[in-house]
Amino acid sequence: MVVILKENTTKKQKDDLVSWFEGQGLKVHESEGEYKTILGLVGDVDGVDKDMLEMLDIVDRVTRISEPYKHANRKFHPKDTVVTVGDTGVKIGGDHFAVIAGPVLADTEEELTTLAGELKEAGADILMGAFGERSTVSPRDDETGGVERLVKAGKAAGMPVVAELLGLDQLRYFSDVDVIEVGQRNMQNYEMLRELGCAGKPVVLRRGMANTLEELLLSAERILEAGNPDVILCERGIRTFEQYTRSTFDVSAIPVLHQRSHLPVIADPSSALGNAKLVRPVADAAAAAGADGLVIEAAQDPKKARIGGAACVDPETFREIMEDIEVFIP
Amino acid sequence: MVVILKENTTKKQKDDLVSWFEGQGLKVHESEGEYKTILGLVGDVDGVDKDMLEMLDIVDRVTRISEPYKHANRKFHPKDTVVTVGDTGVKIGGDHFAVIAGPVLADTEEELTTLAGELKEAGADILMGAFGERSTVSPRDDETGGVERLVKAGKAAGMPVVAELLGLDQLRYFSDVDVIEVGQRNMQNYEMLRELGCAGKPVVLRRGMANTLEELLLSAERILEAGNPDVILCERGIRTFEQYTRSTFDVSAIPVLHQRSHLPVIADPSSALGNAKLVRPVADAAAAAGADGLVIEAAQDPKKARIGGAACVDPETFREIMEDIEVFIP
Amino acid sequence: MVVILKENTTKKQKDDLVSWFEGQGLKVHESEGEYKTILGLVGDVDGVDKDMLEMLDIVDRVTRISEPYKHANRKFHPKDTVVTVGDTGVKIGGDHFAVIAGPVLADTEEELTTLAGELKEAGADILMGAFGERSTVSPRDDETGGVERLVKAGKAAGMPVVAELLGLDQLRYFSDVDVIEVGQRNMQNYEMLRELGCAGKPVVLRRGMANTLEELLLSAERILEAGNPDVILCERGIRTFEQYTRSTFDVSAIPVLHQRSHLPVIADPSSALGNAKLVRPVADAAAAAGADGLVIEAAQDPKKARIGGAACVDPETFREIMEDIEVFIP
Amino acid sequence: MVVILKENTTKKQKDDLVSWFEGQGLKVHESEGEYKTILGLVGDVDGVDKDMLEMLDIVDRVTRISEPYKHANRKFHPKDTVVTVGDTGVKIGGDHFAVIAGPVLADTEEELTTLAGELKEAGADILMGAFGERSTVSPRDDETGGVERLVKAGKAAGMPVVAELLGLDQLRYFSDVDVIEVGQRNMQNYEMLRELGCAGKPVVLRRGMANTLEELLLSAERILEAGNPDVILCERGIRTFEQYTRSTFDVSAIPVLHQRSHLPVIADPSSALGNAKLVRPVADAAAAAGADGLVIEAAQDPKKARIGGAACVDPETFREIMEDIEVFIP
Repeated sequence: MVVILKENTTKKQKDDLVSWFEGQGLKVHESEGEYKTILGLVGDVDGVDKDMLEMLDIVDRVTRISEPYKHANRKFHPKDTVVTVGDTGVKIGGDHFAVIAGPVLADTEEELTTLAGELKEAGADILMGAFGERSTVSPRDDETGGVERLVKAGKAAGMPVVAELLGLDQLRYFSDVDVIEVGQRNMQNYEMLRELGCAGKPVVLRRGMANTLEELLLSAERILEAGNPDVILCERGIRTFEQYTRSTFDVSAIPVLHQRSHLPVIADPSSALGNAKLVRPVADAAAAAGADGLVIEAAQDPKKARIGGAACVDPETFREIMEDIEVFIP
Repeated sequence: MVVILKENTTKKQKDDLVSWFEGQGLKVHESEGEYKTILGLVGDVDGVDKDMLEMLDIVDRVTRISEPYKHANRKFHPKDTVVTVGDTGVKIGGDHFAVIAGPVLADTEEELTTLAGELKEAGADILMGAFGERSTVSPRDDETGGVERLVKAGKAAGMPVVAELLGLDQLRYFSDVDVIEVGQRNMQNYEMLRELGCAGKPVVLRRGMANTLEELLLSAERILEAGNPDVILCERGIRTFEQYTRSTFDVSAIPVLHQRSHLPVIADPSSALGNAKLVRPVADAAAAAGADGLVIEAAQDPKKARIGGAACVDPETFREIMEDIEVFIP
Repeated sequence: MVVILKENTTKKQKDDLVSWFEGQGLKVHESEGEYKTILGLVGDVDGVDKDMLEMLDIVDRVTRISEPYKHANRKFHPKDTVVTVGDTGVKIGGDHFAVIAGPVLADTEEELTTLAGELKEAGADILMGAFGERSTVSPRDDETGGVERLVKAGKAAGMPVVAELLGLDQLRYFSDVDVIEVGQRNMQNYEMLRELGCAGKPVVLRRGMANTLEELLLSAERILEAGNPDVILCERGIRTFEQYTRSTFDVSAIPVLHQRSHLPVIADPSSALGNAKLVRPVADAAAAAGADGLVIEAAQDPKKARIGGAACVDPETFREIMEDIEVFIP
Repeated sequence: MVVILKENTTKKQKDDLVSWFEGQGLKVHESEGEYKTILGLVGDVDGVDKDMLEMLDIVDRVTRISEPYKHANRKFHPKDTVVTVGDTGVKIGGDHFAVIAGPVLADTEEELTTLAGELKEAGADILMGAFGERSTVSPRDDETGGVERLVKAGKAAGMPVVAELLGLDQLRYFSDVDVIEVGQRNMQNYEMLRELGCAGKPVVLRRGMANTLEELLLSAERILEAGNPDVILCERGIRTFEQYTRSTFDVSAIPVLHQRSHLPVIADPSSALGNAKLVRPVADAAAAAGADGLVIEAAQDPKKARIGGAACVDPETFREIMEDIEVFIP
């Protein structure tokens, strides 16, 4: 961290500040320029509040010189993290590519089981049941029904399952879920992130619609530093002025996250675009850009889906995507 | 709602669709153009899924011709809603202007009580204690401590209090809170909105950082239609590419919301900008644009605040704002 | 176009408006709903000013029911447009994929010629010389020098050339240029668009950083309707809150534009991201999403480029991209 | 400027880089941290290309520690700049507030003169005639007609005039114009900015729809450093996802620009919002936030304006705005 002092700072004021930093266990290097004094802080600056420092009368500016995340940082962990999903043999990251697929809304158990079987046969690795913000049915509405049904269908099809955790009070229903998803709305729900640091199972962390990639990595950091190393980052679109798509899928997020972090990165074109016809080309693009996996919303007959059908591909399109991306899978 | 059919639609296909609409209780008016058939649907179209209709092979486009919100719509309720806060005499909306003020984070009970007294004397109407996403302390961390302390300080100062509800599981701590705040992250937490429809107390609904004003009104609609008429809309900034401020305060939201809705509209420049030095001019601007109230983060000594101090004004600046805005208060 | 009248409109007022529409040569279909009268206008509504109509006291809302562009619309021209570049045999669109490559800034003629030869050998089809907004050298600065040098280098390497037109006053230098580029800043420079409608050569139209895809298509419409059918659309990133990249490359623009228009769509990851290390994965992604071509900034030795070098790939990386995308080229 | 070296940098590599910096006339201060070496550069770093430095193998990151603009920076020029418009006595900045008003499009000379007289009587200081991007008529279309008409009407009403310069080739028509406006599309047209540095008359520099305030100040810097001290900054809205307004008027731009720069700041709610009904509350807000002036589009009868009428206020509303803002004018 670098602190730039204002020109009219007295020696006394500067010395007081330097002493305060040293009292915090930091080493301070001074550079005197023509106009300004620069203090370089060396040591653990995580506890230093940048905004507060800038409020001091003698401080002109404060600049971080290292990324504010460490556990998630590739600089300190050059090797790709490979996340293993329970004892199912499914892996994501490094040389392992995995496809998560399923309906936005679990319908009847039978329908779900049929769909799960079909998706698995086509190449899906993990069964998803979203109870997301656009859904009117949530696990709470039907008690544990939604999650239970998903787990049963996963068992029947021999697939691990992932489900979105909407609130911490619902965590008790998730014991048989293999992967927990943090939705875009909860990306900065720090209490949830801390709790999932002790969840003992992998977490899919979705980028918020109004969040930068740095903020996504900072949220991942919370889970990692609380003890859970199995975080999967998920790009799902950001809000922009463009109106032909629900949000703008940021394909460069994939190589940017890979450069900066060792964590696996997956892509969800279905949520990002909200339009089944765009899912295939954008899924292909994400795979070409180096994604470690995909999230694809699918339905047996999207036109009959009770909700969210417009974003779901049918099993035939799902099979086409699986064929398209074969060339990119390590 | 207007449904435009594709050019090559057969009479049989069109008649089937018309019958289906009529089966839903809608009247259908047809216009035959040179290229296209237009179906005008009259009746309650809220149950019609626009996205699904557009997936049908014969449908070219579907357009809503009325706003998708009714209870919140000024067209149907031309008179300003005035929200009364408990039996405290504080009112917001119409000719009533109210100022919510307080620290981001409640420190000790004593500090809070001193600050509350000072803010009240300067003209604040409601005491706020935010436990927001940037806070590391939440009501859960210290059980009911945060809310309890706030309620006590409010009582001591003779002010009603508002606190943010972070999750539905914490609602049980809110019985003595006068106004419940829904933070920007929960603006589309439909389960929370439904529940607050039965809360029996006013709700401050904050605009999400990635949400349009139409989406804000749709969220208000959820609370209103569940039976709670006392919703206060709050502009607190949207995420844009601008980097000198934490978010961009959308001042035109105030007259736009007043045009479209009868609900009171308040403004929170503190959260929007994250910079105490900008709070006064933007608070003045919001009042000039017709806001029904303000939210101002304040602290006895912002430089010593444990967190979020950079956005807090000191009591002196708070008094200046109160003087500035006097000219706008009805 | 559909015009919704306010509830309290009198018959006289409505009849006057209907007569006015009929006077404009439009047919009017009326639908009487419970609350509202809807007028469906049939005919050429391009001359009707939507904003002005909405200012009339009796009008509640006006909604377009067809896209505001015709010549660029795939509905009226289902077949892909294939643009042929002069008599060089290079084609873009339909089954033809073309790669535009070159430096941001043309250095000496010799350097440029060497680079051109190398790029051509690696598979580039068109030589580019950008004199863009980040450049401090423009054709004007050195009179016709920049363009002349580019044309000479293209001749030497046997490649057609594309150059950006910064202002209409420079058009006289472009007679030997094969393709004219309209930069993001000029996307809505309607005078330039009209003029290029008579240019007699293909135009690359770059999306503005703050422009929607609909606005891009409306700008293409201006060139097409002025008589030039050879417009190539170019996605080059939009401005968002994300800070790790210069702008956000909107990969879904490619399939969206292909759905709505018959015009070729190319992608420029270099300008969008400003970071040579991200060009390869995003170029691959664009090709996988169905782009008809790419724009790649390249330099013999990017570290020595006088300007913009950070976005340029070296010839080796360029060859790798050409190999990567082979699988997508029809 | 601070340069952070990678951990594995050898002493030889570091010394080479330090020598290179010293060769550029910079002093270099080194700080050795646990992991990293930090080089603080003191001197004129404007010529150092940050992006290129970051491409070097041994460089981890480069951070500017001072704002990249000097002439526009309040730190070096604490006193407010007051711009004087010709010999007309109109001043903007410091204690001087000025209102620019006029139609988007000049109609007949007579209409324009009548409107000018009425606006002047109501308190307008400068007459505007916009020939903007939404206009289909430009000075070029009718040769010098548009500007000539404006100048004549200004003379008749005894007001100085401001007109937008769409391209450098039109500068020759601007000799009798008192203030030259750079539209949002040309904010980064560096050739135009440089040329206006020698224009010998004040320049209104409008913020681009996709540009940050720092970029606006950098553009002002270009005009100032070329020798023209009379630059007036203009906030006119940025593009965001919000759809109820044409763009989002960033009211906090006003105090932010005042903090960072000594230049006058004016606000254009008409262009920003595109909706006459929102102009009054947002004009009031801008004045309350400390703007040094306003730009208001007005028309004798907005409903009959050939173009852009939806954004124009009528003379009656203009008078109301002038009364509202009286309280803010120094």
